[in-house]
Amino acid sequence: MNDLLEMGTTVLNSQPFSLLIGATLEDLQPGIAELSLVITKGLKQQHGFVHGGVVSYLADNAITFAGGSILGDCVTAEYKINYIAPAVGHKLYAKAEVVKAGKRQAVCKCEILAVEEHQSSIVAFASGSVRKIERV
Amino acid sequence: MNDLLEMGTTVLNSQPFSLLIGATLEDLQPGIAELSLVITKGLKQQHGFVHGGVVSYLADNAITFAGGSILGDCVTAEYKINYIAPAVGHKLYAKAEVVKAGKRQAVCKCEILAVEEHQSSIVAFASGSVRKIERV
Amino acid sequence: MNDLLEMGTTVLNSQPFSLLIGATLEDLQPGIAELSLVITKGLKQQHGFVHGGVVSYLADNAITFAGGSILGDCVTAEYKINYIAPAVGHKLYAKAEVVKAGKRQAVCKCEILAVEEHQSSIVAFASGSVRKIERV
Amino acid sequence: MNDLLEMGTTVLNSQPFSLLIGATLEDLQPGIAELSLVITKGLKQQHGFVHGGVVSYLADNAITFAGGSILGDCVTAEYKINYIAPAVGHKLYAKAEVVKAGKRQAVCKCEILAVEEHQSSIVAFASGSVRKIERV
Repeated sequence: MNDLLEMGTTVLNSQPFSLLIGATLEDLQPGIAELSLVITKGLKQQHGFVHGGVVSYLADNAITFAGGSILGDCVTAEYKINYIAPAVGHKLYAKAEVVKAGKRQAVCKCEILAVEEHQSSIVAFASGSVRKIERV
Repeated sequence: MNDLLEMGTTVLNSQPFSLLIGATLEDLQPGIAELSLVITKGLKQQHGFVHGGVVSYLADNAITFAGGSILGDCVTAEYKINYIAPAVGHKLYAKAEVVKAGKRQAVCKCEILAVEEHQSSIVAFASGSVRKIERV
Repeated sequence: MNDLLEMGTTVLNSQPFSLLIGATLEDLQPGIAELSLVITKGLKQQHGFVHGGVVSYLADNAITFAGGSILGDCVTAEYKINYIAPAVGHKLYAKAEVVKAGKRQAVCKCEILAVEEHQSSIVAFASGSVRKIERV
Repeated sequence: MNDLLEMGTTVLNSQPFSLLIGATLEDLQPGIAELSLVITKGLKQQHGFVHGGVVSYLADNAITFAGGSILGDCVTAEYKINYIAPAVGHKLYAKAEVVKAGKRQAVCKCEILAVEEHQSSIVAFASGSVRKIERV
């Protein structure tokens, strides 16, 4: 585990909501972040698919980590997500990438994939911007 | 409780993730939906604010309910959210409204408010579109 | 004409592209901006509707002006637009409003209306954020 | 020039606004579209940069063409754009790509690049969805 991933994992594990959902930081490199979660019954909506709010959480957080891998401590300022297909399977992955980073902001994109057995398929696409937290 | 609100509450309570988060449907009228949740420790991130994923969940779901109040069973196709301020307080409210509905789609907007004591302040603004689920 | 509207009109008229398109600043007050344009053949696409790029231009610019009415000189950092109906008629209006302004950023929403005879109808809804231009 | 590109060029040239702006369809393949325009004074804003509305137009239209390369005649239903850097140079390129297409909708992403001499840099990133036009 590289230093960045180790630091990121510490941050993730200090987010009670991420622990509640059961997210794992799979990868963190400069400009790249990958989060995953195991799909459990508690994360679903009424039709048996993963709830959109869970998919959104994963995209939002992956975008923050991707931006943070370059900017340091930061928050997602805004993002947009297109749901592409119902999320079914046993695991979800969000792979976020920095499109371009400045000193205080970064624009990122993110693909969210569902994995069932050994098949993965895209279930959502997101993009957004993260902003460095300014310390006084 | 009106019929629409009663039906919406049944739908919300059939979403395991909404039960996990503890969301309540406060209002549901044609073109309007209001969801709330009590802010608990498990919904927070590392700085003590409500996690963005929770705010997103609430916006996403309120948008779906607002669209669904006119279109019937539907899903959020896409949405965008701007985080405005850290979400702190004891309760969150998402107030969604249909901007314009067609036969199969509706565009909605949504304000997310945090309430602390008797003060409420806007913490996010979202907009998106919902699509009627087509039955074969 | 109030001072703000006068100043805004000067800015608008210093934008060659706004002159090319023929936009007019109808209103500018703290937190509110309204732009209009007369629909001419040159602004259309192949089906005879106003080109989406024109509707986008109007939304983007109205959002910048709304934010600028509070923040001063600023740019639109990002925005999102949902097209709701084909834009037909003789005039387009974009009415933008600040949802919330901070010191350096403001989140705005915007409705775009088409007017035909004395009937107006909504053709698009946009939201986005503007950022104050920092001078060194 | 392949058949798809030839057909796309005919469509582009039947859009009066695209002729006004001076856009060229550089490439059109299944799932991929590239538009360009030469930066002229008339396309600028008050600081000498290309107007955001022009950048938006290019992104919006490239997204429509990318989706249309798979779905046939279609419209952009909604999109979002993040401006990354001021657009300066002599030419703009919008490179759009389908992330995933269904039967009636496609989600696309788009990078907008400015070229100055032989240097290109990203000035905006957009994503959105296109919808097939249904004929009665």
